[in-house]
Amino acid sequence: MMIPFNKPYITGKEVHYIYDAVATGKISGNGKYTKLCQQYFEERWGFKKTLLTTSCTDALEMCALLLDIQPGDEVIIPSYTFVSTALAFVRQGAKIVFADSRKDHPGIDEDKIEELITSRTKAIVPVHYAGVACDMDKIMDLANRYGLFVVEDAAQAVDSYYVGKDGVKKPLGTIGHLSAFSFHETKNIQCGEGGLLGINDDRFTKRAEIIWEKGTNRAEFFRGEVNKYGWVDIGSSFLPSEITAAFLWAQLEELDKIQAKRIGIWNSYYAGLSEWGLARGVQIPLIPDYATNNGHMFYLVCPTGEYRTSLIKHLKENAISTVFHYQSLHKSLYYHTKYEGNDLLESNRYSECLVRLPFYYELKSTDFSMIGHSILLK
Amino acid sequence: MMIPFNKPYITGKEVHYIYDAVATGKISGNGKYTKLCQQYFEERWGFKKTLLTTSCTDALEMCALLLDIQPGDEVIIPSYTFVSTALAFVRQGAKIVFADSRKDHPGIDEDKIEELITSRTKAIVPVHYAGVACDMDKIMDLANRYGLFVVEDAAQAVDSYYVGKDGVKKPLGTIGHLSAFSFHETKNIQCGEGGLLGINDDRFTKRAEIIWEKGTNRAEFFRGEVNKYGWVDIGSSFLPSEITAAFLWAQLEELDKIQAKRIGIWNSYYAGLSEWGLARGVQIPLIPDYATNNGHMFYLVCPTGEYRTSLIKHLKENAISTVFHYQSLHKSLYYHTKYEGNDLLESNRYSECLVRLPFYYELKSTDFSMIGHSILLK
Repeated sequence: MMIPFNKPYITGKEVHYIYDAVATGKISGNGKYTKLCQQYFEERWGFKKTLLTTSCTDALEMCALLLDIQPGDEVIIPSYTFVSTALAFVRQGAKIVFADSRKDHPGIDEDKIEELITSRTKAIVPVHYAGVACDMDKIMDLANRYGLFVVEDAAQAVDSYYVGKDGVKKPLGTIGHLSAFSFHETKNIQCGEGGLLGINDDRFTKRAEIIWEKGTNRAEFFRGEVNKYGWVDIGSSFLPSEITAAFLWAQLEELDKIQAKRIGIWNSYYAGLSEWGLARGVQIPLIPDYATNNGHMFYLVCPTGEYRTSLIKHLKENAISTVFHYQSLHKSLYYHTKYEGNDLLESNRYSECLVRLPFYYELKSTDFSMIGHSILLK
Repeated sequence: MMIPFNKPYITGKEVHYIYDAVATGKISGNGKYTKLCQQYFEERWGFKKTLLTTSCTDALEMCALLLDIQPGDEVIIPSYTFVSTALAFVRQGAKIVFADSRKDHPGIDEDKIEELITSRTKAIVPVHYAGVACDMDKIMDLANRYGLFVVEDAAQAVDSYYVGKDGVKKPLGTIGHLSAFSFHETKNIQCGEGGLLGINDDRFTKRAEIIWEKGTNRAEFFRGEVNKYGWVDIGSSFLPSEITAAFLWAQLEELDKIQAKRIGIWNSYYAGLSEWGLARGVQIPLIPDYATNNGHMFYLVCPTGEYRTSLIKHLKENAISTVFHYQSLHKSLYYHTKYEGNDLLESNRYSECLVRLPFYYELKSTDFSMIGHSILLK
């Protein structure tokens, strides 16, 4: 029996809420459970407004539409990220300007963003890799000085925080103008495929709802604010069904329990592997002073690609599944001919050397002891 | 107790299959139930390839991407349709050329398409309104003569057919180059929000799978056809979760039972209201010789808008919910300033005068007797 890399956690109430949604006679989008999930985010973490989406990709596409990204507009994103971070903006014609990762962390190197800003730059899209905050004071300061928008790719960053220079602890996703979350099955809180758009700037609130509902003012109509609804703007069908929302609601209800368990797993990995990592030149996750840990992921950055291959093989022989992560987007088949910047060595290093360990709610302490021992034997 | 306009039917097995999907440990997209649903469509109706999507809108967007729609390309669609038919192509920069409806049916007037074709026309998008086939021989003949693509908007047309001049009965959605289906809660077969792309031209098969999976060749990777996967093309996250697919599978398994029941309801409405309609100048649904009836919808087209308002009011007083349908897209707030063609009088007439009667699996014979009686009293 292999220990899998991921196993989606089910609280047991998902199906109960799906039954309830079905009983209301309305299981298309924007019903009771959609509203419950959105309210949860708005009230717990202080978003001005949130909208559930069918994926984090879709939430990012909504950001690109809301920012009116036009062909030729430049958007700065890290190269070490999931395809969707770039793709959502490429779809609107943006030119992607890739930034390198930090030496001490796979997140965007905040000190290398300013040199990438030009008169055509429209937005910066930091990615909170592994749920660990980017240095948002630096990024927001740049955005303010150059008049840019900030979209936080918070796909992995539910219930994670940034503590700014002012000492205030701010939930990730509430700092930039807009943000996007993922509820893909590999995430802390999940519904198979799903996402959420976070809005922190009132200028986007009304239009976001229209873009979400196929460019129509249907939401206003159902609230009785207009007499009939019609086609008023660009958009798509970004909203998920109530089946999806009901499933997600069961997860959100148990957020605290899930988070406590996951942070415990993370701490066990950290305690067990810190010394070993130091001795072998294997980089282990950094949580900077200004960040919190949401127990999303535990990764190791091996000294070489060969070391990673050999570690993955060794663990596989011990019935442990591990997986690597992104490939540098600036070197991708699709974008390398369009990319005009320098090679990005840190991003390439994480592409070649980073490996993720099994991480899920039901991972037993005997499992991660066994994983730890297998690694220590390497 | 009002008789609702719609009530999504649940077979009872949806939750069973959702449990099963959860038990596999994989509930993100493109798993067991996604494959089952796609195979069902491919085997039963003879598509070259199908891909489940999160909505019919998304399936139409995939068509626009597959056809490489560029700014300035013209796409001919009926004005009397849902926003998404146009929106999916507008998002890629298309200029929409709206066609009028037929006098005897809300579908596109096939004889008025040719005059709209220019050197910039790239595609025709017929909509099989109420699941009733457009005259596809006429449309495919035009497409062949002018070198155009045909995308069938088959949102309402599951299990409906066209009988061509050659006498062959062809499933709707399998005739054009591409097609899009909806599984919105108002459809015969539903999963709250959902859709499917139908592919009938091999040129699109491989690329469709890439566009579906966020522009990556992940599907090929999982089949072992490539060594690693990466970003190779444009795309989005078009695939739904296995939760959605499992729900849909339960519905597809009972398709024949659902269809028999719905066609029975349709026939009862037709038998009860034909004479009344004729006497009052109320147009009732036409099923042309070349079309079949899939029991999707029963509508009445009133002689005037005032008549419709009064009929809706009369039925509401008798505890019967009825709803009108589309507003002409060429007159929409979003598109009327961009629209360069003539006013489209038949489309406007259906916008003003068409009303849809309650139609769902669990509608009892006592219910539709009551609805019929209430209408006859008008």
